[in-house]
Amino acid sequence: MPSVFSRIISGEIPGYTIAENEKFYAFLDIYPLMEGHVLVVPRQEIDNLFDLPADMLGEMIQFAQPIAKAIEACFDCNRCGMSVVGLEVPHAHIHLIPIKTANDLNFTREKMQVGEHRMREIQEMIVAALK
Amino acid sequence: MPSVFSRIISGEIPGYTIAENEKFYAFLDIYPLMEGHVLVVPRQEIDNLFDLPADMLGEMIQFAQPIAKAIEACFDCNRCGMSVVGLEVPHAHIHLIPIKTANDLNFTREKMQVGEHRMREIQEMIVAALK
Repeated sequence: MPSVFSRIISGEIPGYTIAENEKFYAFLDIYPLMEGHVLVVPRQEIDNLFDLPADMLGEMIQFAQPIAKAIEACFDCNRCGMSVVGLEVPHAHIHLIPIKTANDLNFTREKMQVGEHRMREIQEMIVAALK
Repeated sequence: MPSVFSRIISGEIPGYTIAENEKFYAFLDIYPLMEGHVLVVPRQEIDNLFDLPADMLGEMIQFAQPIAKAIEACFDCNRCGMSVVGLEVPHAHIHLIPIKTANDLNFTREKMQVGEHRMREIQEMIVAALK
């Protein structure tokens, strides 16, 4: 049974793609902590981020880096924060979130409800900033 | 004025070293969210993690990886979580924290008070697990 992230990557579940290459995929979190909350995942389903082969782990954060800079460019924030929690979906993922305070990166908070139109706008902003 | 992390690296402020190489340094956070909370920093003072040169960023997470695995081996946890917040000290740093719940990675929580004797025990455990 593919993970929910693999089903987004395959297109079985609709998603808001931000960037992709042969190894990694980035898309908007549909339960965002903040507008601009992006998930970065390896295409390969490995549960724990720290169990990725070292070279892949290095490549994954390098894949995430320009996305983080694009998020910083698009949103009113102090910087792009990063979290790896991984207690819910057994498919390694990095959260990239524009933050002003530590509470913006607090995963015990209630998630935001962002409508489809606004999600598309956010997607387009970040993708444009990546170029 | 060197950052508080540079002053720990130089030994001006006493710290609990976990690992080091020519580019990176890891030590126990003295205001831990959980026992086993480790900070990983580049020796070079760059404020924002995502402003590190891409090769250095990749090397930094690869430096952190075996420390994360050692933390997982030492503490009763689901896995080692990771956070990059960076709103307080303008010297890039990765938090590695053994977690069971998302609240264990919540930086709005009150920090723990861990005595020096226990900090030394935690340091020795993680260093031993790294070998």
